Order: sequence, then structure tokens, then C-alpha cells
Amino acid sequence: MRIVLTLILGFWVVSVHAAGNQALLELLRALHENGTIDRQTYDLVIQAAEQETPAGAEQLQATDETSEQSVREMIRHEIAQVTTKESKKGPTVRVGGRIQLDAATFAEDQARHNDGTEIRRARLFASGELSEYWKYKLQYDFTGTGIDGLQDAYLEYTGLDLFNIRLGHFKEPFSLQNMTSSKYITFMERGMPHVFAEGRNIGLQLHRGGDNWNLYGGVFGDGRDGAGSDNDEGAGFAGRVTWLPWRYDGNLVHLGASVSHRASGSTDTLRFRERPESHVTDTRLVDTGTFDAESFTRVVAETAWVHEMFNLQAEYYHTSVDREISTNPDLDFNGFYVEGGWFITGESMNYKKSGNFSRVKPKTIVGQGGYGAWQLAARYSNLDLDDGDINGGEIDSFTLGLNWFATEYLRFTANYVNVLEVDGGPLSGDEPDVFQLRAQLEF
Amino acid sequence: MRIVLTLILGFWVVSVHAAGNQALLELLRALHENGTIDRQTYDLVIQAAEQETPAGAEQLQATDETSEQSVREMIRHEIAQVTTKESKKGPTVRVGGRIQLDAATFAEDQARHNDGTEIRRARLFASGELSEYWKYKLQYDFTGTGIDGLQDAYLEYTGLDLFNIRLGHFKEPFSLQNMTSSKYITFMERGMPHVFAEGRNIGLQLHRGGDNWNLYGGVFGDGRDGAGSDNDEGAGFAGRVTWLPWRYDGNLVHLGASVSHRASGSTDTLRFRERPESHVTDTRLVDTGTFDAESFTRVVAETAWVHEMFNLQAEYYHTSVDREISTNPDLDFNGFYVEGGWFITGESMNYKKSGNFSRVKPKTIVGQGGYGAWQLAARYSNLDLDDGDINGGEIDSFTLGLNWFATEYLRFTANYVNVLEVDGGPLSGDEPDVFQLRAQLEF
Amino acid sequence: MRIVLTLILGFWVVSVHAAGNQALLELLRALHENGTIDRQTYDLVIQAAEQETPAGAEQLQATDETSEQSVREMIRHEIAQVTTKESKKGPTVRVGGRIQLDAATFAEDQARHNDGTEIRRARLFASGELSEYWKYKLQYDFTGTGIDGLQDAYLEYTGLDLFNIRLGHFKEPFSLQNMTSSKYITFMERGMPHVFAEGRNIGLQLHRGGDNWNLYGGVFGDGRDGAGSDNDEGAGFAGRVTWLPWRYDGNLVHLGASVSHRASGSTDTLRFRERPESHVTDTRLVDTGTFDAESFTRVVAETAWVHEMFNLQAEYYHTSVDREISTNPDLDFNGFYVEGGWFITGESMNYKKSGNFSRVKPKTIVGQGGYGAWQLAARYSNLDLDDGDINGGEIDSFTLGLNWFATEYLRFTANYVNVLEVDGGPLSGDEPDVFQLRAQLEF
Repeated sequence: MRIVLTLILGFWVVSVHAAGNQALLELLRALHENGTIDRQTYDLVIQAAEQETPAGAEQLQATDETSEQSVREMIRHEIAQVTTKESKKGPTVRVGGRIQLDAATFAEDQARHNDGTEIRRARLFASGELSEYWKYKLQYDFTGTGIDGLQDAYLEYTGLDLFNIRLGHFKEPFSLQNMTSSKYITFMERGMPHVFAEGRNIGLQLHRGGDNWNLYGGVFGDGRDGAGSDNDEGAGFAGRVTWLPWRYDGNLVHLGASVSHRASGSTDTLRFRERPESHVTDTRLVDTGTFDAESFTRVVAETAWVHEMFNLQAEYYHTSVDREISTNPDLDFNGFYVEGGWFITGESMNYKKSGNFSRVKPKTIVGQGGYGAWQLAARYSNLDLDDGDINGGEIDSFTLGLNWFATEYLRFTANYVNVLEVDGGPLSGDEPDVFQLRAQLEF
Repeated sequence: MRIVLTLILGFWVVSVHAAGNQALLELLRALHENGTIDRQTYDLVIQAAEQETPAGAEQLQATDETSEQSVREMIRHEIAQVTTKESKKGPTVRVGGRIQLDAATFAEDQARHNDGTEIRRARLFASGELSEYWKYKLQYDFTGTGIDGLQDAYLEYTGLDLFNIRLGHFKEPFSLQNMTSSKYITFMERGMPHVFAEGRNIGLQLHRGGDNWNLYGGVFGDGRDGAGSDNDEGAGFAGRVTWLPWRYDGNLVHLGASVSHRASGSTDTLRFRERPESHVTDTRLVDTGTFDAESFTRVVAETAWVHEMFNLQAEYYHTSVDREISTNPDLDFNGFYVEGGWFITGESMNYKKSGNFSRVKPKTIVGQGGYGAWQLAARYSNLDLDDGDINGGEIDSFTLGLNWFATEYLRFTANYVNVLEVDGGPLSGDEPDVFQLRAQLEF
Repeated sequence: MRIVLTLILGFWVVSVHAAGNQALLELLRALHENGTIDRQTYDLVIQAAEQETPAGAEQLQATDETSEQSVREMIRHEIAQVTTKESKKGPTVRVGGRIQLDAATFAEDQARHNDGTEIRRARLFASGELSEYWKYKLQYDFTGTGIDGLQDAYLEYTGLDLFNIRLGHFKEPFSLQNMTSSKYITFMERGMPHVFAEGRNIGLQLHRGGDNWNLYGGVFGDGRDGAGSDNDEGAGFAGRVTWLPWRYDGNLVHLGASVSHRASGSTDTLRFRERPESHVTDTRLVDTGTFDAESFTRVVAETAWVHEMFNLQAEYYHTSVDREISTNPDLDFNGFYVEGGWFITGESMNYKKSGNFSRVKPKTIVGQGGYGAWQLAARYSNLDLDDGDINGGEIDSFTLGLNWFATEYLRFTANYVNVLEVDGGPLSGDEPDVFQLRAQLEF
């Protein structure tokens, strides 16, 4: 801005002065006095103008090197000023967030599920750069209480060739649907085996990636808030590799694998339980209850395929548990989901270089003469929490979804969830249905 | 910005090039290299400049259509760039908030009220446009815990001629003093019958308005956080109509009516109770206790009158309750308030087209040679929570207020509340006084 | 921006119109229509252009006063517009914050301390000016729950010669290490006698300062959230004076004194207890337990010395308690710390005019070819909570610290804390060690 201003003033004053228009020179002085241009700039401009120049366009042909020097100096001064000012301003801050509003109605079978509305997520974040190569993000979800609402709180250094370093509280690298933001998953809730994903912890992660692959690895503590009272905090490591064996335009095949190992620490116990892919109810259909665990290891095999307006995605999860009480048998749980989508309006899933799906870009926008993007989707999910002495139950579920991306930042989703069967566990035989709606905006 | 830059550069380079000033062309090149102007712009400018043009002002008369075309193209390119960049930037975000600090001292009678200080409200919000016609707001009050602190979280579409649509968590349309922001009400707390107002819920509202009328209607769930454990969530609808039968300059008469019907859902109970128009104490002077209720309907008649520096405002509330236990008698509660104000310094109440009062604009500002706006005000409130088997008590209260609007965004308020009588209920005969102060800022 | 635009357009259109280039005039019209320039500006520019002017450079020599007037008017209009627009925008808002991530491991002795990680602070703030002289700040720490996370929430008026006035929720003026932001203290935690500092309350403070001195005084309530249920809220006053008897370049000697008196109010009790200078553990090594107290007075003597890359700092605290139960003996507790630092890389502590230390500015920046600032530091702390009938214990502790200021806004700290002795109290004889790390960023 200042550069342009100076250039203009420089050119203008040279002309003006040459032409002897005192009134305009006074305006320049006024601009200086009211602070629009600073002293140094003003002096340089006047100095440039005071070079003897012929009237009219001829002054532009001036070969006077001093004048040229003045202008150059002026420019350099301005650029320096802008730079200084920016570095003085310090870190950049961008504020953004998301709101997700849900409503659900249930066709109950055995267990009670209350119809109702809910604010699923209401997040605010600040992110930016502390200085070149040093990025940060701080994100809070107002649906959480106290420290439990804290989401991302990390620092990232991108100045090394070999890898990027991330330090702080963020998602352990694990599974495609887990690493895809809740804003960009196809259905309202992730497929049920997401129960095995670790979520966010305080840790240190290295990431190296190319155009068609990524390698993530990190070590992590347990939670946001120090250890419990009995024992040292649990800790673990996690890693994820993604690879695109084939990519052409928007069409691609994604393959990936994740692993996460963790000492359960503190309480030396674990519990897995899951809702029927709706968060409005608090009733869990499968539930292992609390059991003793020394450590546990989870692996995921990931696949996805995008072909223009179509996509398929599937993941298989396996979890093995080493028990704390040595006489108890080790445990194996697993689950998988398969989902597919079709953009009726011709859009395509948006795969990011980081190995995850991102914001869908509608071809037309509601409010600007368009009707947005429309996507039909279906998913089959399975989660088996039965093994050894643990009878948590196995659940199969089928979901139909309709997404309406009214604009790039606004999305409406309808999901019909049909729980096909609960086999074993506290609610064996339960087969409820859910119909639910979400309005989601991000900024 | 970029458009100006290009225009200038276009004009300048044409002149410059014509005049053969290579030094300035080098500057242009430098500007391009340091990223101030992009490649395409640079090329267009140079291309425009390289048209054969005579020296001096004559080139402006050039009838060369190609040159004119180049400039047009340049402009279009720049406008496109700006547009693209803005749409890339995505939603706009404005961050704002409010702080209200209270101190109160009580002349107690029967019940205990503790003198003290309190942060009444400490809110932060982000609001803006997702894209044209799509507005949003996310607001949190840090005096709340977890999700209970969430205030506005909504989306609004203003692209239809017929009505605006609002979806999310926001205030049900009901009553003038309720819809007027807590920043802009005349006294520190709203008049006591505000106990009947529903507050914010998740819902969908339609709004249509003209220059002197508004019609609001919506359906709403109950609360922010899904249903309780016993039953489906409560739900209801609310509507409000406002009309200015007379308006001339700042002088006006406001008439309005609100209605709200609600099935109590979840617990099938209700409770109404109210403090003595001070939030520093937690003691309620009237209290129905919890009673069974299947549904309830509330209506309000609203009036207001503004004549230059004077204003009057009054509302009457009626609430009827259908009991859950059919042998219990249906109930009727009611209340009203009448208030008036006088701006000693000559300002006037600021009535918004939306049918509510808004920010007072002082004629002079403290810190800029002025003394702000000063307003004297008085209010009489009545709330009757006695009916049938419910003996909640009836209360009458008189309040004197002094408002000092030091700047448009800063206000100090002193209130003297004299509880005239409590008749019936748990604290029958209690007549405490309150003197309280508030400092309020908004940004 | 608009000023430049107008100036340019003015100059340009005058030339253009004179030269009869209709195409460019059309562009001007287009710019007006798409909203880049407003109606009034457009009219003024056209009007200026329509003055009869000779072609080419000669028009600049125009002595036509009307034309000059038009341009002047145009400028004034633009300046007024910019000013109006800014005042319409109202308060300025800057968003910032901090993240502190800790990890600690303990060499336990008697008491249990769990190894672990923790988000020590995660704060977001908005600050700015409501209008000239009226500043505000609202800051929240997401590690707190509900209102307890609220930090600064205040208003400050700087328009008086005599003193600045601050009103709201902020730190009572007390002690050098207390008033120095947690971002800028030398070690991860403040020295143990910080237990006597009052922290933030709602109050009113006056501040007057010169180049080398400050005087702070204020009255304060107790907490953020009104009184407890038994009694009126506690209240107190606090004052602090700082003085630089000697300052030369970055070298200085700081002397200061603080006093704080407080009626304990509400519960009429007190409790002092302290962790071993690590916040990851919740175990306190010294603890008076709850005891009756009517009022208490705390004084601090502060000293600091900065000589280029070296600094020393020491404070002595004394607390006297008047008991509520008159037969109980009055109590005296005290503590002190001495600390010193050495910037290996040649930086210096950054002392602010306000009488506190602030952000260290590294000479070189990591990510820009530098290695940041490195500082070695050591501290000895003592806290004695034994007196009369209260046996809280006395503790001595020694800490070694290493600070790496990678950039001005990013800092890594390693602390080794060696508890030398606990004498008396619930954990008499305990001598744990702590090794802890912190990553801290601010934006």
C-alpha cells in the first residue's frame, strides 16, 4: 500500500512540481501533516521533485541519475518500512470456527433413546504463524467443560527439509476417518470402529510427505491434565503411512496403515463402548465395561477410491490388549466399515496432500444462483467387542446419508441409521433406527 | 487495492515506456519480482505499454483499440483476482464481546443477601458472512460452565424476498425487554416478569419485516444438550409481532405482542422463581417450587413510546399452565412492568428496525472533550406467582436508575431497587433494598 | 487507501477527460458501479474533470480556483469518510493468546508425585481501544472451568494527566514476580512465596508512573462470582511502588515494595499450601490446612539488578494474620527467593516502564539462520508456614534452569528442582526432585 502511495506521489509530484502547481504541493504537505505519509517519504519525494526537470512529459525522459537514485531510495525505504512494520506486528492470527447443530428422532427397540436437539460442536480457533516456519493453532470446543473442551493446541516447525515437527496437543496420527476433520466426514458420525481411535494427546510428531505419500510418527502422553492420583500417566506412540499408488486428475486410489501402541498408565484399565452412530442419545448399544489392561495395540488398514463423482472408502481395525492381571486372557477386538458416495451434481471428494479428505467445493452456490452440491452415501459398519471374558457385544449397522453442500462453508446432512443387529453385550438383540439431521457451518 | 495498483501502473507505464524511461521500467520489474504485482498483471501492463504510443499526453488519445482492450482486460483480470482471492479467503470474521462488572450492597430484611462483586457477563463472539446472504454468529459467555455458557450459535439466510430464515441456537422471539440485548436494557436487570421468557433454544425461525413492522415465528427444541434421561426433549413454538403505528424522526409508538407455547417434555415439571432485580444475590424472593406441568402458554402485550429525550415502556405477561397430573388445577401466573427514562443531556433511545432498542449514541464522548450521555429512569415491576395449589408469592418492586453512557461502547449504571412488598410465598413480608453499580463495555 | 484512490482518479480523469478518452471514463463509471468508489467521490471527480482544461500536462498549471477547490473538497471528503468509517467501526480488537505445554518426571521421596504431561495454560484474549484513552482487555484460560478460567476483564482510562484508572478483574498490584507475566518469568513456576500473592479480583486501581518509578494502589473485592452463602464478600486494598535508583542503557537497579491488606470475609478462614515449583503434580509439600482468620496483611520487599547479559532478582515476603477466634494467637508467615540469570548469547532481560520484566528479544531467530537466545539461571526459594498453633512446614528448594528463546514468541524451558528440605508440616523430611520441560508460545 505504502509502496504504491509513494510511487504515485513520486510520479505525481515530479510532474506537479515541474508544472509549478503550488496548490497540489500544498495537498502533499497536508497529507504529510495528517500522517498519511511519513517525514522521510515526504522529504524524499520533495527532494526528487526539486531536481530541475522540464515541464510536462519531458521530465520522464530525465537522465538525471540523482533523481533516479531518489526514487529507488524511496522505494527501498518504503519496502523496509513495510517489512519492519510487519515484523513488529509479530505473529499472525486468524480466527475461525465451526458450529454443528443436530436433531434426532429414534425408533426405539429395547433401550431408551430420547428424541431431541443438540449442539454437537461449537468451536473457535486462532491459528497463524509466530514467524516464518513456526505455525501454531489453539482450538476450543464450547461443548466441553473446562480443559476437556480443549482441542488443538500445538506448535509446528516447517523449516527442515527432512520432516515437519509438531509439538503440543493434537490428534495422534491414526486412521483415515479419524484424521479427516469432523467437518468433512461423509456421515454425521464416524463409523463405529472409531471407538478405537485415541483422539488428541500431548505429544511430539514428525511428518514427512511427498506428492503422493505421507509418513507420520509420534510419541504421546495421556490427556490434557497431568496424571491421575494413583500412578504415572499413560503413554504411547502412533504412526501412519499413506500412499497413492495411482492418481490422475481428481481420480485416485488411497492406501494406508496406522498403528498405535499405548501403556494404559494411571488406572491400568480400559473401556470401549459405542453409541449407534448418533450423538444425540447417550445410550451405548455395545459396552465392554471397565476391565484391567496393561497395554494395548491398535492397527488399521485404510483404503479409499475416488473416481470423479464417486468414492468408496473402507477401513479395518484390530485391537489387542495385554491384561494387567496376568491370569486374565489377552483380548482381541475388531471392527470395520465400508462406505460409498455419489455426487449427483458432479462434484468430487477433495483429497488433501496430507492424506485425508477435506472441504467439498460445490460447483454452484446457493445465494448466487446455484443449488449447491448434493451427495448420496451409504455405509455398513461393524464393531465386535466380544472376546475372552469380555462380553461387550457385536453390532452391525447400515446408514443412508444425504449431504447438501449449500456453499463451500455450509452443509446440511440427513442420516438414516438402521442398527441391523446387536449380538451379545448388555443390549443383545436391540435393533433401533435413527433419523437425524445436521446443519454445519465453518468460518 | 490491486485494481488501483494496476490502473496506476497501466497509466504510468504507458507514459513511462513512451518516454523511454528505462529506470522506471526496472522498478516495475522489481515490484513484480518482490511479489507486489503478479506475473499476469505485469505482462498485461508491459504489453499495454509496448503498443506503439506517442510521447506525452497524446498517447491518451490513442484510438488504438488493442491498447484499450489491454487495459480493459487488465481491469477485468484484476477484478477477477480480487473476487477469487476474497472467495478463497472465505467467510468474514468479526470478533467482539462485552464485559459487565457488578457490585451490590443490600439492606436486608428477612432473607440473607450477601454484599459483593461479580462478573455478570463476559462474552466473546465471532460473527460474519459465510458468503453473500449467509450470516452466522457464535457467542460464548465465560460466566457459564461448559455448554451452558453458549449463547448465540446460528446461521441466517437473507437471500429470500419473502422472509429471512434463522437456524440454530438463539433467543425465541418473545417480549420487548427480552429481545433487547442485555447491553441496551435501561436497568441492570430486566423487569421481574422476565422470568417467563424462554431464552435461547435450538430452533428454526422465519422473520419478515418492513420499515415499521416485524413478524417473527419459530419452532424450538429445549436447551443445548439433547434430552434428559427420562423422556423426549420438550419443544415449542414462539411468535412475535411488532408495529409502529406512528413514527416521526426519532419519535415513535411501538406496539407488540408475543406468544410462546411449549410442551415441558423430559421432566414434565416447571419452576418459576426470581431474584429482586439484582444478580449479585442468589436468594429468590418468590419461588413456585417445582410442580408438575404438561405444557404452558405465555403471552405478552408490549408498548413503548419515545419522544425525543423521553421514553416510556410497559409490558404485561400472562402464563397459563396445563398440569401433567390431571387432578391438579390448571394455573395462571402474570406480571407487568412500567418504566420511563429521561436523557438529561438530550439523547434519545435508539429503536432498531428489528423492533428492539439498541445502543445509545451519546452526543459528546468522554475523552474527547465531552461528558457523555446521562439518563434518569424509574421502573415499577410486579410478578404474581400465586395460583391454585401453588403459593409462590407476589412481589412489587420499584427501581430508580442513573445511566452514564461515557462513550458509545462504555456505560456505567447505578440502580436503587426498593422491594415494596412480598405477599405470600416462602419469604412473605420481606422488603429488602439493593444499591448496585455496573460498569459495562462492548467491543 | 480511498484517499490515494481519489487522488489518482482525480489526476487521471482530469488528464483523461481532457484528452477525450471515453473508454477510460467508462472504466471509471464501471468502478463506481461495482462499488470500488462511492457516488460522492465519483461526482466530485467527474465534476473536477469537467472543468474546462487544456490537454496534456498544461492542465496541471491550471490556475482555475474552482478546480483546485474541487480537488481540496474531494480530499476533505475522503478524509472525512475514512474518519467516519473508522469511528463507525468502533472499538479496535486484537486477538492473541498463549499456550504452555509441560512434561515432568519426579524422583519421589515420601509423597507420591505422578509423572505426566499437562497443558499448563491455554489462553485467548481480545484487547484494544473502545475509543481514544479507553482501553480494554478480556482474557480467558481454557484450563479453568467456567468463570474460574476468566483472567483479565478490565477497562482502563488513560486520558488523565494525574493517573490512569483501571476498573475490572485484574491482578492486584503486588510483588515483582507476580506482576511479571507467566510468559516472562525466568523459571517454569514462580518462587514458592508466590503463595502469598492475591491474584486477580474485581477492583479499581489508580496508577501513576514516570520514567523510572511507578505507584499503584487499588481496592478490590474477592473473586469473580459474588459472595458465598454465609457472609458478605471479603475485600481489601493493595499498593505497590517501584523505583529505578539507577538506569543506564539496559543496565538497571530495581527497588520496590508491595503491601496488601484483606478482610477474609465470607468464610473467615484462610489456607496456604504450595507445590514443589512444579504444577504437574497436585501434591503440596507444605500446607497450613484451613484456619480461622479475620484479616491478613502481606508485605514484599523487591530488588532486581540487570547488567547486560546478567541479572539478579530477590524478594522477601511477610504475612501477618489476625485471627477470627480471639483466643487464637496471631500468626506470621514468611518466605523469600533469590534468583540469577546469564544470557550465554548476549541478550538482556527486558524491563518495562511499568516496573516488570517482559518479553526477551533474541538477537537471532531460529528459522531465519539464527539459534535464538540461551539463558542459564538458578534460584533458591524458602517458604515458612510454621507459626503459633499452625504447623504447615518450612521448605527450602533449589532450581536450575535453561531457557531457549527460539524466537521472540516461542520459548522452551528445562527446570531441575531439588527440594533441599521440608521441615515440619504434613510431609516433614520429604526431599523430592523434579525434572520438567515446557514449550511456550504466544501470539
